[in-house]
Amino acid sequence: MTSEAITVLGLGNLGRALAETFLRADRAVTVWNRSAAKAEGLAATVAGTAADAVAASGLVVVAMLDHQAAQQVLTGVDVRGKALVNLTSGTPGDARELAGWAAANGAEYLHGAVYAVPQTIGTDASSIIYSGSAVVHEQWQKSLAELGKVTFLGDDAGRASGYDVAILSGMYGLLGGFLHATALARANGIEAGELTPMLLSWLTDLQPALTMFAGEIDGGSYAGGESSLAMNQSGLATLIRAAEAQGVPFAGLDAFKALVDRQVAEGRGEESLARAVESF
Amino acid sequence: MTSEAITVLGLGNLGRALAETFLRADRAVTVWNRSAAKAEGLAATVAGTAADAVAASGLVVVAMLDHQAAQQVLTGVDVRGKALVNLTSGTPGDARELAGWAAANGAEYLHGAVYAVPQTIGTDASSIIYSGSAVVHEQWQKSLAELGKVTFLGDDAGRASGYDVAILSGMYGLLGGFLHATALARANGIEAGELTPMLLSWLTDLQPALTMFAGEIDGGSYAGGESSLAMNQSGLATLIRAAEAQGVPFAGLDAFKALVDRQVAEGRGEESLARAVESF
Repeated sequence: MTSEAITVLGLGNLGRALAETFLRADRAVTVWNRSAAKAEGLAATVAGTAADAVAASGLVVVAMLDHQAAQQVLTGVDVRGKALVNLTSGTPGDARELAGWAAANGAEYLHGAVYAVPQTIGTDASSIIYSGSAVVHEQWQKSLAELGKVTFLGDDAGRASGYDVAILSGMYGLLGGFLHATALARANGIEAGELTPMLLSWLTDLQPALTMFAGEIDGGSYAGGESSLAMNQSGLATLIRAAEAQGVPFAGLDAFKALVDRQVAEGRGEESLARAVESF
Repeated sequence: MTSEAITVLGLGNLGRALAETFLRADRAVTVWNRSAAKAEGLAATVAGTAADAVAASGLVVVAMLDHQAAQQVLTGVDVRGKALVNLTSGTPGDARELAGWAAANGAEYLHGAVYAVPQTIGTDASSIIYSGSAVVHEQWQKSLAELGKVTFLGDDAGRASGYDVAILSGMYGLLGGFLHATALARANGIEAGELTPMLLSWLTDLQPALTMFAGEIDGGSYAGGESSLAMNQSGLATLIRAAEAQGVPFAGLDAFKALVDRQVAEGRGEESLARAVESF
C-alpha cells in the first residue's frame, strides 16, 4: 500500500468513470464491484472482496447506487487508518451516520456530491462538493482534484448532502417542468426541438429573479411584489386549465399552486411569489 | 384616429408598461382600465369606456388579467377594421376563440405572449412571440418592435399560446423546484443565498442534456440512457426520503417520480429519463 494507491468501491457509471480517471492520472487503482464483470476492460487490480479492496489503498472512494448499498459494503470491513470518500447519494442524515460509524472504526470520512455526467468526470465540467474530514480533504487534495473542481464546505459530514438534496430538488423541478412543457407543446403540434431553445432562453433570463427571490427568502421580507403571489395564482390556474383541456394534466403544477394558494388565502396575494417557500 | 394611435386596454403591471413604452416612442396613446385610478401619472388619454378607447385607435392592445376579463371587456364593443393584439395569458383554445370572434366582428386578431418583466418591456431583454393575423404583424411591425424582440409563429392564433403554456409549465417547474430547494437548504442550515449560485450553475450545465432529451422525444427513441430512468428513480426516492425526514415534503417530487415509476414498471428502466414524457 502506497499513498498513491486508491480503491474504488462500486463500478456503476460513476464508479467506473472515477476508476478510469485515477488510472489516467497514474494511480495504482484497485476496484471492487458486487458483479466483477463490471470491471472488464479496466486496467485496475480487481479485488475479490470489498475488504481486500479496502486493504489495498490509503484512499477508498465509495460510489454505490444508494446509501443502503454503501452501508452494506462497508459493514464488517476493517477501515482503520483509511481515508473514506463517499460519493454515494444520500440524505444529510445518511452521511452523518456513516461519518459516525467511520469515527467509531478508526477511519476519516469525507462525503461528496458530484455535479457531472460520467463522461465529464476528470474534466473542468465536473464539480464535486465535499464536507466532513478536513484531514482527508487536505491530504488527498491532489487526487480529489483529478476528478473535477473541489469545493470544501466544512466539517459537518452532512453539509454537502444538505446542498445536494437541495440542488437535486431544483434539478428535478426543472426536469419535470421541461418534460411537461414538451408534452404540452406536442399536444399543440409543436416539436420539443422547436420549443427548447425558446424555453431555455427564458429560463436563463429568469436567473436574476431567482437570485432576488433568494435575498427575499433569507431576509424574510417579501414586500417587493414584482411577481406577486396573486398574479402567479392566476397564471397557474390558466396553465392547469390549459393542460387539462389538452389531456396532459401534471400534478406537479397543482403541488406548486397549493403552496401559492395557501399564502394568498392568508392575505399575502400582493407579496412576492418567493413567499410560497413559507408554505413548506 | 391616426395610424400612429394606439389603445391599451388594461393597466395592470403589463398594460401600464406597454402604455409607457408607446408614450416614450411618441405614439398617441389612449388607455382604459376598469378602475381609472390605475391611469394616474400616465401622459395618455384616459377613455371613459372600453368602447371609446377602442374607437380612438387603429391598434388596440389588450393586457387584461385573464382570458375571461379580456372577453368581457371586448364583448359588445365595435371592433370593425381594428387591429387587435391580445397579450393576455390564456390557453390556445382561448386565443382561437377570440380570433374567431374578431373575424366575425370585422377585426384582425394577433395573439402574443410576453417574456419580460414589466421593467424590461421596451428593452432588448423583452421578447414577445405572436401568432394569428399576418396583416397586423406586418402593418404594425414598427410599433410591436417598440415593445421588444418580435417572433411571428404563423397564422394559427393559438400557436403562440401553445408555446406559452409550454414555456410557463417549464418556468413553474423551475420555480417550484427552486423554492423547494431553498426550503430543504434552510432545513439544513444553509441560506438561500449560499445555495443559489451553486444551484444556478448546475441548472445551466444541464441545458445541453435538455436539448439532447428534446431530440430523443422528437425521435421517439430513448435507447441512449446516459441518465437512465432506473438511476433517476433511485435518486428521486432518496430525495423524497430526505425531504420527508427534514419535514419539507413536496408533492411536486412525487408527481415527477410517478411519471418515472410508470416507465420503469413497463420495463424501460435502462432507457433515457426523457421517456418519462410518455407517461403524460
